[in-house]
Amino acid sequence: MKYQQISIIGAGNVAWHLALALERAGHTINEVYSRDIIKAEQLANSLYNSDPVDDLDFETSASDVFIIAVPDDAIEVVARQLLVPTNALVAHTSGSQPIDILMGYDFEPAVFYPLQTFTKGTELDIQEVPFCIEALNAESLKLVQALAKTVSRRVEIISSEQRKTLHLAAVFACNFSNHLFHLASNVLEADELEFDLLHSLIAETVNKALEIGPARAQTGPAIRGDQRTMKKHLDLLVDNPELHNLYQQLSQSIVANK
Amino acid sequence: MKYQQISIIGAGNVAWHLALALERAGHTINEVYSRDIIKAEQLANSLYNSDPVDDLDFETSASDVFIIAVPDDAIEVVARQLLVPTNALVAHTSGSQPIDILMGYDFEPAVFYPLQTFTKGTELDIQEVPFCIEALNAESLKLVQALAKTVSRRVEIISSEQRKTLHLAAVFACNFSNHLFHLASNVLEADELEFDLLHSLIAETVNKALEIGPARAQTGPAIRGDQRTMKKHLDLLVDNPELHNLYQQLSQSIVANK
Repeated sequence: MKYQQISIIGAGNVAWHLALALERAGHTINEVYSRDIIKAEQLANSLYNSDPVDDLDFETSASDVFIIAVPDDAIEVVARQLLVPTNALVAHTSGSQPIDILMGYDFEPAVFYPLQTFTKGTELDIQEVPFCIEALNAESLKLVQALAKTVSRRVEIISSEQRKTLHLAAVFACNFSNHLFHLASNVLEADELEFDLLHSLIAETVNKALEIGPARAQTGPAIRGDQRTMKKHLDLLVDNPELHNLYQQLSQSIVANK
Repeated sequence: MKYQQISIIGAGNVAWHLALALERAGHTINEVYSRDIIKAEQLANSLYNSDPVDDLDFETSASDVFIIAVPDDAIEVVARQLLVPTNALVAHTSGSQPIDILMGYDFEPAVFYPLQTFTKGTELDIQEVPFCIEALNAESLKLVQALAKTVSRRVEIISSEQRKTLHLAAVFACNFSNHLFHLASNVLEADELEFDLLHSLIAETVNKALEIGPARAQTGPAIRGDQRTMKKHLDLLVDNPELHNLYQQLSQSIVANK
């Protein structure tokens, strides 16, 4: 594909990771926008030749692709104020917002959603991150697909409906399982045990789930129907109604999905 | 330490991994016991010079360490029938059974518990697996500790009470989080999406939890207090009372542990 002229709207973690990856892939990042010009400068300074701006009027910009990487509830505000050259493509990067949020303006809407959690200062292999893309016509789809392929090996056309499902599944698989790690670390702490005792077991559990699928990988008292061990565990949690309740519910759910 | 003369009681996954690791560390595995002599033979054949047996009379064995790696509910039966040379050390490998289960017999009880999930045919670096050990006197403790150190970099003296806590925490961190992966894959499947779209995100979530701790690593709508997104997710789950309920409970728990 030809190298693109791009502007990045936003200067948070997603903006940082995308801007650096797109530049590394050969594209030009002409501007970085943030309401906070200091933040725009920090990111622009990390790029080859990029102007920091705190104004959404891009009518004289050389870019034809604009990537909105701002918090979900700011996308609409940005879209309303955004002025871009005619026929420019404007893509948001949100897992939970439909493409519609960018409709009705004087630009081509698209979605350019990297399915990953980005942490400042943490390098990760963006080539392995699935990019979920969407557009309203073939030409825009082709453009956003080609762009995604320059940074990732895994590019999927995903509808706004499917993206909702994906986001919900990610909450279960990531936010909720991370919370279970947190609860486990609380349980250990109360008995003066370190969470890192579980590191090797957690790492292997996840490897196994990704390798053979979580259904086949399941072990433990609930799937075995080991009532004695479950009873012992519930007895240990008798003074902690929250964990007691979660233990019961999750065990029942394991049995119900067997 | 001196190399030990060891017999392995059991021929399941734990027995396989321990026998191979102990032999690799220089110890001698004299016998492998299984009720099913074919299984005993399979493991014994994978070892340098080991006899398969289906009888628990080890009085003439050259071993002074006996490792019981059988299902939890079989440990007591084995202990009752086991005949070993005077002063032999007998260690079980269970995360959920107290050391008491080996008391009252003519041998020295101990615990030699590798905190890991072992899968047949899956190699893992046993040096990284924490070994939780316990014994009733200093001499036995020293022996079982030295033995564990020959196979693992991480050996911890853990009481039976603490081991219960550890096992409970492992159910939360591993069985339950694996179940959440399973639920996530069901959610995706219903919308014709592949679970492996989440691989990169799950791997990074776990890396982050292990690196900076799960409390600091938490992201998502619940911790942000993003009621709008939570409402949308609950609406998607309206026909699935099980997931609807779990979503609510886990979100509440995230907020309560903030």
